[in-house]
This record gives sequence, C-alpha cells and structure tokens, in this order.
Amino acid sequence: MPEPIKILIHGGAGTILPSAMTPELEIQYKNGLSQALTAGYNVLKDGGPSLLAVETAVKVLEDNPLFNAGKGSVFTHDKRHEMDASIMDGKTLKAGAVAGVTNIKNPVNLALKVMRESDNVLLTGEGAEKFAASHGVKQVESSYFYSEFRYQQLMAIIDTHKAQLDHNVKVAVGEDNKKFGTVGAVALDKDGNLAAATSTGGLTNKKFGRVGDSPIIGAGTYANNETCAVSATGQGETFIRYVVAYDISCLMAYKGLSLADACREVISKIDKADPECGGVIALDARGNFAFEFNTPGMYRGLMQQDENPECWIYR
Amino acid sequence: MPEPIKILIHGGAGTILPSAMTPELEIQYKNGLSQALTAGYNVLKDGGPSLLAVETAVKVLEDNPLFNAGKGSVFTHDKRHEMDASIMDGKTLKAGAVAGVTNIKNPVNLALKVMRESDNVLLTGEGAEKFAASHGVKQVESSYFYSEFRYQQLMAIIDTHKAQLDHNVKVAVGEDNKKFGTVGAVALDKDGNLAAATSTGGLTNKKFGRVGDSPIIGAGTYANNETCAVSATGQGETFIRYVVAYDISCLMAYKGLSLADACREVISKIDKADPECGGVIALDARGNFAFEFNTPGMYRGLMQQDENPECWIYR
Repeated sequence: MPEPIKILIHGGAGTILPSAMTPELEIQYKNGLSQALTAGYNVLKDGGPSLLAVETAVKVLEDNPLFNAGKGSVFTHDKRHEMDASIMDGKTLKAGAVAGVTNIKNPVNLALKVMRESDNVLLTGEGAEKFAASHGVKQVESSYFYSEFRYQQLMAIIDTHKAQLDHNVKVAVGEDNKKFGTVGAVALDKDGNLAAATSTGGLTNKKFGRVGDSPIIGAGTYANNETCAVSATGQGETFIRYVVAYDISCLMAYKGLSLADACREVISKIDKADPECGGVIALDARGNFAFEFNTPGMYRGLMQQDENPECWIYR
Repeated sequence: MPEPIKILIHGGAGTILPSAMTPELEIQYKNGLSQALTAGYNVLKDGGPSLLAVETAVKVLEDNPLFNAGKGSVFTHDKRHEMDASIMDGKTLKAGAVAGVTNIKNPVNLALKVMRESDNVLLTGEGAEKFAASHGVKQVESSYFYSEFRYQQLMAIIDTHKAQLDHNVKVAVGEDNKKFGTVGAVALDKDGNLAAATSTGGLTNKKFGRVGDSPIIGAGTYANNETCAVSATGQGETFIRYVVAYDISCLMAYKGLSLADACREVISKIDKADPECGGVIALDARGNFAFEFNTPGMYRGLMQQDENPECWIYR
C-alpha cells in the first residue's frame, strides 16, 4: 500500500473572478502553484519530512513575484516591505515565526531557523534580522522586493488611509475587490508527520507595524499529528480573533468532527462575522484534506502519490 | 440578588518560595495586588464594563515597579525595554495587542486603543509607537523604566546567552529559579460581559525582538462570553505552542468541561511538556473562577461583591 504522502498549498484567497483574469495570467498562476507543489512533493517522495516539504513549497511561492510573500510582497504605507511567516511541526509541536522582517529573501526559512536554532517561537523586526544575520539566513537589499506593479498598487491607495487587503492581477479598485495574498502549505510525510507553514507580505499600505495572522501559531498556522495541519489566508484580524487554525484542531480533538466538517464549521463561523474573509487549507494524519473558503476564489493546489499537481483558482 | 461582578489578577508565576521572600516584601506585593484589584473592582462596582476594569487593574500593576510590566519591565540584552500587551472583549471578540514597544507608559492602554481606534489587532515596534503618538497614548523616556535592581538582573546574566525567565526579589541565580513576570486580569461585569488583559516586559536578557505569549490572542489572552476569560503567565513559547488561553475555551465549548476542569486539563497538558512553566487566571460568565499553575507560586488575587481583596503568593 502506498504511503499517503500529500501536500496542499495556497496562494491567497479573495474576489478572484474569471472576468478579471487573462488566460495567460491564469496559466502563470497555475504554473507557479504547480512548481511549488512539485518541489514540496519531491521532498516527501524522497522520504523527507513534512516540515521540509512545506518549507520548500513556501520558498518557491515566496520566490514567485505573483504571490504576496517574499519577492512579491506588497508595499507598506512607508514604501517598505514587512513580511511575516511561521512554521510548525505536528510531531513535536515545535514552532518558529517571524514578523515585520524587511530584508529576508525567504521568511519561511528564517521561521524554521527560529524553530530549530533558538529557544524562542516568535522573533520580530530588526531583532529577527539580527538573528538571521548570525544564523546564515539569506538577506537581500530592499530593491529585491521592488516591482512597478506592487508600487502602483500602493500609489493607488496611499492617500486613502485604507490598508488594502489586496493581492491580484490589477491594481485594486476598492473594498468590493477583496483579495488576500498570502502563501502557505500543509504536508503529510511517509512517517505520518504533519507540518504547516504560512508566509505573507501582509496588506498594501499597512501602517504602524501591523501584523496579521500568518506568524501567529493557532491563528494562521497550526500543526499537530493528533489532529491536523492548517494554513490560513484572509483578513488576518478575523483569523486572529477566531484563532482559526487551532479552532479546527479543537473541533476534531474535543468534538470528534472530521477534518472537513471542522473546516466547514470554522469558516461558517467566521463568515457570519466577516463575509468573504478568506480560507484555509488543511490535512489530517490519515491524508484527508480540505480546501475551505468563503471567498469567490482561492489560489490552491494538491499533489499526492503518483499524480500530477492539481491546481484551482475559482470555487 | 447581587450581580456576580468579579475580578481576578496575576502578577507572574514561578519558583516563588517563602525562603526567598522577606515579610516586608511580601506585604509590598500583596499591597500592589490589592491596589490593582480595588481599582479594577471599583470600575465594575460603578457599573462599568469588564473591558475597562481589566485595563484599569493592569495599568495599576504596570505602574508598580515590583511587577515585570510597564515601569517594572526587565532589560533586554540591548539594555532596552521591549513590552508586549493585549486585551480582549468577550462580548464582541474584538481584541487589541502591541508587541515590542519601548516608550509606552501603559502598554495595555495602547492595546485598548488599537482595539478601539484601528482596524487591526496587533501592532508592533516603532510602528505601534507611531500609532500611540497619533492617538494620544502616553509616551515616556526610557529612563522612566530604569531601575538599578532590574539593571543588576541583566548584568548578572548578560554574558550567559541565556534569556532569564525571571522576575523576582533577588537577582536570579539560574534556571532552577524560574520566575515569569507578567501581569494580567480577567473580569466579569454586571451585564455578564467578560474581558481579559495581559502585559509584560518579557524576559531579562531577551534578544532578537523575541515576543512571548502575552500579546498573542489565544495564547496569553482570550475572552469570550460564551466560555471564559483567561490571562496567562509563564514560559511564553510553551503557551504559544499550546495555544493555552483558547484551549481552555475550546475544552469548555466543545467538550463541555467546567472552567476549573478545563484549566486543570490544560495546565496538566503543558506540565508534561514543560514542568513549572506557569499558570493562568480564568473566569466564566457565571462567575466561576480558577487560578491554575504548575509552579510553586503565582502572585494572584481576587475581588468580588462586598468582599475585601484577597491575595495569595504561594500554592
């Protein structure tokens, strides 16, 4: 019987509509997702741990300018890039996270270093960058993150006092057009170990050192072999207040819900508070998986044994 | 029938032993706790909301140099003070938090401003300070936080590469002597609304922008009228990984446990992973309350209708 190794990824959720997408761009997105899935899956296929698989997949997404994480990160109000990421190991419940880092090529890699090489879970800002410098994590100039497209996204709203929830094909036109750019992965390895990772550039035009759910263990990321691995994308504040990732785990552990039912219940709960606020990818230790979101679309994909990567954008 | 208004507070947990305490200092601690309880309780007695009661109580603890929060915050490795705080409203599930602020007299007040006057939950570092400056939150010079006692605590371990988990009567002597200085409050008002708040200076000699559980909704702080209000103190990394505050809520909501049983189960769970790692104060909407910790002591207190403040230090 083949091992149930499996990886799921997401590249953000929101008002992603066919009418706003070109065929060429759709192919680019799907190619980006497929590359990340394949890279992560290859780790699993080679017998590697889920922790490395999710880090690998998220790094590929961080390196792709289409997604709002790493290289494709959006601009803050101060024309900077402040990135957040986290990773969690479902076997040990160890976790690492960084928030507000500005010069790290792959924030998810730094999060893994924090988990493995520090006594801490969450490092922030310049301090996290000092840790990176002393632990061999790749740092880059801020120009690495520059793109004219992202800059114009900022310019379009810099005077509006609105932080844009947006990451998408064109410059955002308003709040009707909510898109949450964040990337994430969950994986199950041959030893039955789960892991989850999430990385983001946050919100265009964000101010005041705002941090969302991506680096918060229990909100944007959670993994526990006994229940599930979850990575979220969406309106970070809602995901923090509803402790979304851990809520799914608790519904499984304490109420006996299946992974799919737990995901549906939690997304239904947050939908009442904040319609079209995002979604999750989730996986349990038996290989059951779920993509659950209350937005019209979520960039997402799955790869499992002896199959090609499968990617979807719309509902 | 009198309303079940009630407030609980803590001032940190750890290896607090009678042998290391003088009678004078014990009185000072208990007086500090009593002042905070009385201030918070008076808000409730005047018909005020639990949210304001917990903010008020925590502010009194932040202003007291005995406790590791606000004025009494410990030094980081860089001889700074980096403070974290959060607050949550059990009626609305709204929350506010700040991490890594250096010049805020009352971080819990800033957390409340974030909740009320921003679209965000968590603001960090200099960005959070800019928000404070533009929202009338009291800022102070770094000298405000200086104390010779705290400075000597840092000097004793600055070359050890250890972050000290410590906040106590004497300069820490090692890891056998774990003390987690953090302050927090949970309250129930006449309308049956719960609230929770937590504030800390973190770890002596902490580096790299380390942030613990205090500003993390679900880990160090959580409030929900349907279940409970919780404020935690302890080894922040463990409390983050186990999503301690929200775990208590989930055990009540999904498994039907009483508040006391839920607190016991969660502290028992983290005790297996990390002995003597801290504790929680918790309160439900019917006025049931719990102090649960796996350390020899926790500075803590309770005030309820027509009674004097009651305070305890040891188990």
